[in-house]
Amino acid sequence: MTAVTVLGLGPMGHALAAALVAARHPTTVWNRTPGKDHDLDAAVARTAADAIAASPLVIVCVRDYEVAREIVDTDTLKGRTLVNLSGGSPQQARALAAWAADHGADYLDGVIMAPPEAIGGPEAALFYSGQHEVYAAHRPTLAALGENATHVGEDPGRAAAFDAALQDLLWTSMSGAVHAFALARAENIDATELAGHAKALLGFFPDMIDQLAGQLAAGDFPGDGGPISAAAAAMDHVLSTIRANGLDNGVLSAARAEVQRAIDAGRGSDGFARLAAL
Amino acid sequence: MTAVTVLGLGPMGHALAAALVAARHPTTVWNRTPGKDHDLDAAVARTAADAIAASPLVIVCVRDYEVAREIVDTDTLKGRTLVNLSGGSPQQARALAAWAADHGADYLDGVIMAPPEAIGGPEAALFYSGQHEVYAAHRPTLAALGENATHVGEDPGRAAAFDAALQDLLWTSMSGAVHAFALARAENIDATELAGHAKALLGFFPDMIDQLAGQLAAGDFPGDGGPISAAAAAMDHVLSTIRANGLDNGVLSAARAEVQRAIDAGRGSDGFARLAAL
Ligand SMILES: NC(=O)c1ccc[n+]([C@@H]2O[C@H](COP(=O)([O-])OP(=O)(O)OC[C@H]3O[C@@H](n4cnc5c(N)ncnc54)[C@H](OP(=O)(O)O)[C@@H]3O)[C@@H](O)[C@H]2O)c1
Ligand SMILES: NC(=O)c1ccc[n+]([C@@H]2O[C@H](COP(=O)([O-])OP(=O)(O)OC[C@H]3O[C@@H](n4cnc5c(N)ncnc54)[C@H](OP(=O)(O)O)[C@@H]3O)[C@@H](O)[C@H]2O)c1
Repeated sequence: MTAVTVLGLGPMGHALAAALVAARHPTTVWNRTPGKDHDLDAAVARTAADAIAASPLVIVCVRDYEVAREIVDTDTLKGRTLVNLSGGSPQQARALAAWAADHGADYLDGVIMAPPEAIGGPEAALFYSGQHEVYAAHRPTLAALGENATHVGEDPGRAAAFDAALQDLLWTSMSGAVHAFALARAENIDATELAGHAKALLGFFPDMIDQLAGQLAAGDFPGDGGPISAAAAAMDHVLSTIRANGLDNGVLSAARAEVQRAIDAGRGSDGFARLAAL
Repeated sequence: MTAVTVLGLGPMGHALAAALVAARHPTTVWNRTPGKDHDLDAAVARTAADAIAASPLVIVCVRDYEVAREIVDTDTLKGRTLVNLSGGSPQQARALAAWAADHGADYLDGVIMAPPEAIGGPEAALFYSGQHEVYAAHRPTLAALGENATHVGEDPGRAAAFDAALQDLLWTSMSGAVHAFALARAENIDATELAGHAKALLGFFPDMIDQLAGQLAAGDFPGDGGPISAAAAAMDHVLSTIRANGLDNGVLSAARAEVQRAIDAGRGSDGFARLAAL
């Protein structure tokens, strides 16, 4: 089994180290603040440089890219593979990849679409980007963190780009969900009752995603399945109900404003996907 | 088979009339502008009053509630059941129900969560509200419009309230989806490639809806599965990637601002569902 080093034992780094230990990889850990390793069957290094020297594969998972770079900036990094799983932007990932190349290290960037408790299990989705051959060499080891792993491209920024796009969808939708519950509450609709119908509605989302993607891939935005102008009218209905309940919805109002910009640009009869390509 | 009248032959009214005809209900139609009935095997009334007089069950589906009330304001309405399927707010539905009661008519309010082409089929979801006994009497006839029909309560505004809450979720999420595609595009990620991962992410949404509903139903908002403060940090990551690409995201920024209000109110360590009950 490949020896692995994990730098950073916050909730996520700790979960990564535990999964590697569970998969019987000789694991070395280091964390700025000592004492977070007591329940890990791993070697504890005194310094980050020592920890890096212990393994050919070095995983760093700390608060952000600045901290990650600071920690791995040691002579011992040369000739090893650095896998950064700290969160950040595609631009930061590309910069750290270039820095690693300058320091003689191979580099993969990864993002974790899962909470710490899912690490190692089937619910954890991981994306990696960077040289395919580096990924291929370490895939068996990285699989200990989650089998549902995808190499999304050689551009080291690509995993972070996927993550950002998906999190944009996630948090915007979560915000729509809490607004739906808030409006239901104002109208004396039980949260559990709404949830049943909301889940039925969610059943149509995969098809809608495919429709949007199909129009974007084709660069053609027919509005016959529901033009932007109809979306505007529907949003206006919802917003007036929200206001009649003395509530506010800045999120849907912002969405309505974007729709208006498309209408003003003469795109009101196009399909909704046009909003992603104005 | 019960005789039915349909007032309004826009795209939706026409689809409703066609479904009733297909189910062999003797159908009478009327529309302000003549000539939209030529492909319908239905009796065509000269006036709305005549159309109403032809059937015990009268469906109106026009642009909005004001138009609907104007059309049904005839002496012939007395003793019949009026089903309004024009879109509007719960408040408008309640007002029309009270007006109908004053005019000696039973009243149901309905909303159609489907495009005209889905009417009559399994994909069309319809919600009705109003007196249960009135709904029960007409349910077999209304089933011709779609078997997936739910009576959501006696308050006549309840169907419209469900509709507004679900459309809030729908359009906010659709907006999140187009932003995800826009960001992917800026990062040279193919729409089809993103769609596959977006659909995988959607697979977690039903559980998230249940979690939000569970916290709201209990009135207890533990943040251990992911506090509001963590959502704020994740949104900040996404927003900085969006800005680094020279894009803008007013929708996610508005969502972030709401999260900040919760944090400022001392709710940062609560679960996300707290946003629906601040
Ligand atoms: N938790 C999640 O659900 C989740 C999900 C997906 C991705 N991630 C990503 O995983 C990474 C780690 O997250 P986390 O949940 O473990 O908690 P975190 O609070 O983001 O990071 C904590 C880790 O960063 C270290 N750290 C912070 N500032 C430091 C500094 N100046 N010098 C050295 N070390 C420093 C901490 O060390 P000390 O113990 O010494 O403070 C600790 O090891 C983040 O980038 C996050 O975006 C997390
Ligand atoms: N289409 C959909 O996908 C959909 C989905 C769900 C719910 N709905 C709801 O269904 C209702 C009807 O929608 P629609 O798609 O058929 O088209 P619409 O444009 O909303 O309504 C067209 C109908 O309204 C009539 N109308 C408008 N102004 C009038 C006036 N002043 N006096 C008399 N009649 C008037 C039109 O008559 P003329 O032909 O004489 O103009 C026509 O019958 C709406 O309330 C909508 O919210 C529609």
